Amino acid sequence: MIVVVAYDIVDDRRREDVAMALSGYGPRVQLSVFECDVPTTAELHRLRARLRELIDPLEDQVRMYPTDTTTYNQRYIIGARTVEERSHYWIIR
Amino acid sequence: MIVVVAYDIVDDRRREDVAMALSGYGPRVQLSVFECDVPTTAELHRLRARLRELIDPLEDQVRMYPTDTTTYNQRYIIGARTVEERSHYWIIR
Repeated sequence: MIVVVAYDIVDDRRREDVAMALSGYGPRVQLSVFECDVPTTAELHRLRARLRELIDPLEDQVRMYPTDTTTYNQRYIIGARTVEERSHYWIIR
Repeated sequence: MIVVVAYDIVDDRRREDVAMALSGYGPRVQLSVFECDVPTTAELHRLRARLRELIDPLEDQVRMYPTDTTTYNQRYIIGARTVEERSHYWIIR
């Protein structure tokens, strides 16, 4: 399942940590948006728990939007600016 | 249908114009993310066309993720930071 994850994180260090965690699941498609390929519900819960650990719940916000094949294929992109389109992910840093 | 719209817009004026256009459809839920309630497919096409007019296709990017009732209800939000949660929209400025 592809989960669109968008975040507003105030602190640079926390933002980097969140991006690092998300980059293990899929590409960053905008500065603060990742498309995460999450194979199971259990993995989704693990990712949620990890993100809860990383952010400051008062200052930051993460929104996770699960998609299904139908809705994901209806996505629509305007503009060529790409941060890191989907080619190969599991980026090891 | 709720469409999650996320954008990376370089120019301040263009970014404001995009936010203004989107605010007519629903709340800004993050700095660069709106949840737009788009009633018909025809309206979705009008919104797409409007966004295409507003952005610079080389510098900017807008991603539109349609949801359905099931996937939208699976959204998951971590953190209290809210820009403008869903209460009443059709904001006239």
